[in-house]
Amino acid sequence: MNKAFFGLVAVGLPLSIIGTIFHWRSTILFIIYCVTIIALASYMGRATESLSIVAGPRIGGLLNATFGNAVELIIAIFALKEGLISVVLASLTGSVLGNLLLVAGLSFFLGGLKFKRQSFNIFDARHNSGLLIFAVIVAFVIPEIFSMSLTEEKTMVFSIGIGIILIILYLAALFFKLVTHRGVYQSQKESVESDEEAPEWGKWKAITVLGLATLAVAYVSENLVHTFEEVGEAFGWSELFIGVIIVAIVGNAAEHASAIIMAVKNKMDVAVEIAIGSTLQVAMFVAPLLVLISLLFPVSMPLVFTIPELVTMVSAVLLMVVISNDGESNWFEGGILLAAYFIIGIGFYLL
Amino acid sequence: MNKAFFGLVAVGLPLSIIGTIFHWRSTILFIIYCVTIIALASYMGRATESLSIVAGPRIGGLLNATFGNAVELIIAIFALKEGLISVVLASLTGSVLGNLLLVAGLSFFLGGLKFKRQSFNIFDARHNSGLLIFAVIVAFVIPEIFSMSLTEEKTMVFSIGIGIILIILYLAALFFKLVTHRGVYQSQKESVESDEEAPEWGKWKAITVLGLATLAVAYVSENLVHTFEEVGEAFGWSELFIGVIIVAIVGNAAEHASAIIMAVKNKMDVAVEIAIGSTLQVAMFVAPLLVLISLLFPVSMPLVFTIPELVTMVSAVLLMVVISNDGESNWFEGGILLAAYFIIGIGFYLL
Amino acid sequence: MNKAFFGLVAVGLPLSIIGTIFHWRSTILFIIYCVTIIALASYMGRATESLSIVAGPRIGGLLNATFGNAVELIIAIFALKEGLISVVLASLTGSVLGNLLLVAGLSFFLGGLKFKRQSFNIFDARHNSGLLIFAVIVAFVIPEIFSMSLTEEKTMVFSIGIGIILIILYLAALFFKLVTHRGVYQSQKESVESDEEAPEWGKWKAITVLGLATLAVAYVSENLVHTFEEVGEAFGWSELFIGVIIVAIVGNAAEHASAIIMAVKNKMDVAVEIAIGSTLQVAMFVAPLLVLISLLFPVSMPLVFTIPELVTMVSAVLLMVVISNDGESNWFEGGILLAAYFIIGIGFYLL
Repeated sequence: MNKAFFGLVAVGLPLSIIGTIFHWRSTILFIIYCVTIIALASYMGRATESLSIVAGPRIGGLLNATFGNAVELIIAIFALKEGLISVVLASLTGSVLGNLLLVAGLSFFLGGLKFKRQSFNIFDARHNSGLLIFAVIVAFVIPEIFSMSLTEEKTMVFSIGIGIILIILYLAALFFKLVTHRGVYQSQKESVESDEEAPEWGKWKAITVLGLATLAVAYVSENLVHTFEEVGEAFGWSELFIGVIIVAIVGNAAEHASAIIMAVKNKMDVAVEIAIGSTLQVAMFVAPLLVLISLLFPVSMPLVFTIPELVTMVSAVLLMVVISNDGESNWFEGGILLAAYFIIGIGFYLL
Repeated sequence: MNKAFFGLVAVGLPLSIIGTIFHWRSTILFIIYCVTIIALASYMGRATESLSIVAGPRIGGLLNATFGNAVELIIAIFALKEGLISVVLASLTGSVLGNLLLVAGLSFFLGGLKFKRQSFNIFDARHNSGLLIFAVIVAFVIPEIFSMSLTEEKTMVFSIGIGIILIILYLAALFFKLVTHRGVYQSQKESVESDEEAPEWGKWKAITVLGLATLAVAYVSENLVHTFEEVGEAFGWSELFIGVIIVAIVGNAAEHASAIIMAVKNKMDVAVEIAIGSTLQVAMFVAPLLVLISLLFPVSMPLVFTIPELVTMVSAVLLMVVISNDGESNWFEGGILLAAYFIIGIGFYLL
Repeated sequence: MNKAFFGLVAVGLPLSIIGTIFHWRSTILFIIYCVTIIALASYMGRATESLSIVAGPRIGGLLNATFGNAVELIIAIFALKEGLISVVLASLTGSVLGNLLLVAGLSFFLGGLKFKRQSFNIFDARHNSGLLIFAVIVAFVIPEIFSMSLTEEKTMVFSIGIGIILIILYLAALFFKLVTHRGVYQSQKESVESDEEAPEWGKWKAITVLGLATLAVAYVSENLVHTFEEVGEAFGWSELFIGVIIVAIVGNAAEHASAIIMAVKNKMDVAVEIAIGSTLQVAMFVAPLLVLISLLFPVSMPLVFTIPELVTMVSAVLLMVVISNDGESNWFEGGILLAAYFIIGIGFYLL
């Protein structure tokens, strides 16, 4: 797996640079960029993981929380710079949907084909359920509804207020998990297991890889954003579809792979943590951060999704809350999540 | 009970035929048709049950799943043929509401008057909760929201796509329940109990009864559909009210009776399975099948409910998910469900 | 604490009377009235509690249920008399939000700072969850949605019907809790504890205090209602903000204080019961009662909230249902509820 990613970077990055310089056709560039970003993301993931182990659980948790969705953040910043507000909101929607339905769905489904019943930490699942309802239903739906009777300026003020509250609550959640209640809700077995890990790379090698990969992702992302319009025309895809489905899959490919691997190894705790943790990170950290960052650009981004985006996110959250509520999974629960993802995918394609 | 139904068929069927030929007043015919269908439905139910026992649990489950809502399906097909799309959608809504609120409500309430606390299989309840959220919130709400910005043609494409996914998932749910995970989530007690049953009728008698009753239901249903307009005028009922409340009660009368009988016998597992299983069958099998069948008729039916229909179905689903979540019931929980049904009934009456 | 309230009444009540007679500035009167009502409410609370103990658990429960939100009811009746329908609906919304998010949030947060994990009766929590979904999603959302296609007159008929059903179900809930299922879902420990209490005041003293405090609250409330318009102008607050945030905090101050005290004493059962019980009382008893009382006034009040009011209430209910579902709390869960309250507060301030 790692070798394949090395090959992809070794080929994809030069091709990205050459193709950009010589203005190859957008559709070809789009594919090259996407593949390169996915391969680079795997390097960022491995570097972050090594650093986390070296730094110990607290700083490690913080690092994972910050760099876990770095790729999406970078792509989104370049899209913001271009004023593509609706693409950014669509890609945030796509991340939420992709993680909750596609990543978790595939994990439950493929894990469930191998094991009849898989279980995960029920306390974490319930803790996450509360945050999902908060982030998606309180923090996303309410500004949309209120914005209907607010001026644009007031909507932006409201968005900034919500953004700050989301980030504070996200940091509080980390503090809760890593400091005040570390291990409180863990079973004995889990706490023993976690000692064994050894980092893949040393501290400085990890930092170097992380820095270089981030730079490369930034370079490719900036160019990727410019291809959206032409690619949309070529394939008959709307901006919404590109944002919700394509960008989200590219931005989250690393999580997809690792969650599924964990599920097939019957480490369902980790798979669920990746899928739902990543969703929460996007909703409670990446999204509000982008609102604040957008203030630096000419066009600022309010936290106002479209109705189809909100309805699909709310459905996905309710589905996940009900399905994860018992701390168990099987192939059929995975099937439900995947079926929901297909329905939503068709919907955004037609829109 | 069975004798009463025999009498009703023996009187109702000839009256239905004579009344139809001699063009009696619609309101009188309407009542005769409804009573006759209810009585015939009990025969179809008994025949299906006998066949299920003869055929063994797997084929039996499939038979139950297919013929369980045959009456509704037949009435709906004749309504589709007449182009009464909104009546069909209303009757699907009514089936969902009637099963979730009226059937389960009466079962919980009457069972709860006799027993202080009744319990049912919590795994099944949670499995069903996930499917309810999927069917009603993902598969019903999303097309309605997306249809607002879609052309009629694209809405129909989306409906067909969702219909196919729903039917596949419904079949997967049967496969899960009857093959891969049969008995996995069952308590010891239950699995023993189920051996004792003996079929009421032999294989060929059951098939004959089922065939004849189905034909008779089809004949009466076709005529029933023609009375809706005049009956609505006579009683001041809207088409919506007829569909949501009247057709749904007639179409589900058999389930109502058997669920309540089971609840009073403290077989709460079966009562809940009938109520929620029947809801899922309507939402995941009958509704999408009707969408596909409607393609054969001049007017095709998209899976787009009205807002009041959706809001009441979503409320009913959330109520049931929360109430069934603990695997226990009592008379007051039944009261909540019945109160919700009354509120919704008044609402559709006024609409 | 009690001495402080005595002082506030001793100073606030005369000042209220003098200020009213001499027409002091509205903003100053507003503050005096609010403080006086809060202090008087504490007397009403203590009198009700003493009476409850004297009267035994059944009548006591009924008394608590009736007088628990008497202050809100009185303020609302005077607002109705003035035709301030939207202020009344806003203050009902505010009570629901304040109890579910602010009272429960502060209880969970402050209790959680002292104790790592606090637990409360999971049966009560689930029972209440069902009622919350019923009251807010079935009984509040449905009339709003239906009212869009109903005449004003029919909307009022629907509201009265729902009001009567809500009150019947509320009484049934009391009957369930105090008669048919008393102690059925209680742990051994709890049932022992409750014997020890002794009433603060004797029967007649309690009745006298309750009567006098109620009269005084009525007098001050009538005048308070008249200050809303000028206060709104002075502070730049909309009627909605005054209703949802200010009136709700004043009307519920007593519950706020006692719930938090209980939480810090680790009597989480009582704290949750105050917060959620009070919400249910408002939604299922005070709100429908006001609909019925409004029929006596020139302008009658339908049970039709605005969309922002409904969306915030539904969010709050879903958040509470998911968070209370495990029968445990910690500081972070309190933080989530408080964060939701802040977001909603900002929203109504901007509206």
